[in-house]
Amino acid sequence: MAYIELGNDIPGIRGLLVYRPETARPLGELAEVLLRGDSTLTRGERELIAAYVSRRNECVYCSNSHAATAAAQLPGGAGLVGQVMADPGTAPVSAKLRALLDIADLVRVDGRLVSPEAVAKARAAGATDVEIHDTVLIAAAFCMYNRYVDGLGTSAPDDPAHYAAGAQVLVEHGYLEP
Amino acid sequence: MAYIELGNDIPGIRGLLVYRPETARPLGELAEVLLRGDSTLTRGERELIAAYVSRRNECVYCSNSHAATAAAQLPGGAGLVGQVMADPGTAPVSAKLRALLDIADLVRVDGRLVSPEAVAKARAAGATDVEIHDTVLIAAAFCMYNRYVDGLGTSAPDDPAHYAAGAQVLVEHGYLEP
Repeated sequence: MAYIELGNDIPGIRGLLVYRPETARPLGELAEVLLRGDSTLTRGERELIAAYVSRRNECVYCSNSHAATAAAQLPGGAGLVGQVMADPGTAPVSAKLRALLDIADLVRVDGRLVSPEAVAKARAAGATDVEIHDTVLIAAAFCMYNRYVDGLGTSAPDDPAHYAAGAQVLVEHGYLEP
Repeated sequence: MAYIELGNDIPGIRGLLVYRPETARPLGELAEVLLRGDSTLTRGERELIAAYVSRRNECVYCSNSHAATAAAQLPGGAGLVGQVMADPGTAPVSAKLRALLDIADLVRVDGRLVSPEAVAKARAAGATDVEIHDTVLIAAAFCMYNRYVDGLGTSAPDDPAHYAAGAQVLVEHGYLEP
């Protein structure tokens, strides 16, 4: 049960979005632009960055949700997502995506840890400035979403089917509908 | 100089907002709702929470900006802001605001650190559920803004006059104009 009376029993961030529509709107718009807007990173790749940051932050609801949404949109499916979650250094992803995942994890710990060398490595692997920008902002945004979900003590279902069903809704309808 | 070519030399988050208007819009809307929208917390109190989180995260640009914006809107001015930055435990703020600042700092470190006891203390001091919700989300959001600003290596002016001038613009016009 959440720390505040939400007036609903919807798990994770969705119960919070229903509780406070004024903040739900920009939170949903930000996720929509970052994870589904025009980009040279695929939707699956961007969901993977979100899932990885959430997993490293140990936010159960967000990591399960975005891992399922990444798996639904990546050719490698849940197998690839599991490998990245376990160790991006050995997972079969492109050098560019691996370098972006490294930047995302630095941002997650502290933005000041991102170095010119980490950025140069991503760029040498083919990352554009906008891809680097969006990776930093996706990682930073999930440091917000994770803290929002955990800081208010929301619930996270155990059943993987919950997240698989949620992923289908997100893939089809996106983040603008609460 | 930022890690990516922004096409402008505007310091801090403002250069990033001009660079990427697609993400600037929801980022500005979120700050506007949280820091200036209808609330039983004053605008000064909410800017103080934002400034305190940013200072604790050691984000120079954000802490200076929001400290100046808090000072411009709080009866206690810069003196009070300085006391809160140094130690909210001894600063002359209400028990409610002190309890909310405590929650904000827990969220800042890790959302999972927020305890039923910390929430009960805020509630006993008069905090409402919406105030607790908004405090958690302000703290979480500044964990994003701070990482965005620092993770892309943006510049932060030394001159206090820069932040005082920026604060006047924010007080008058808010966060919707980049």
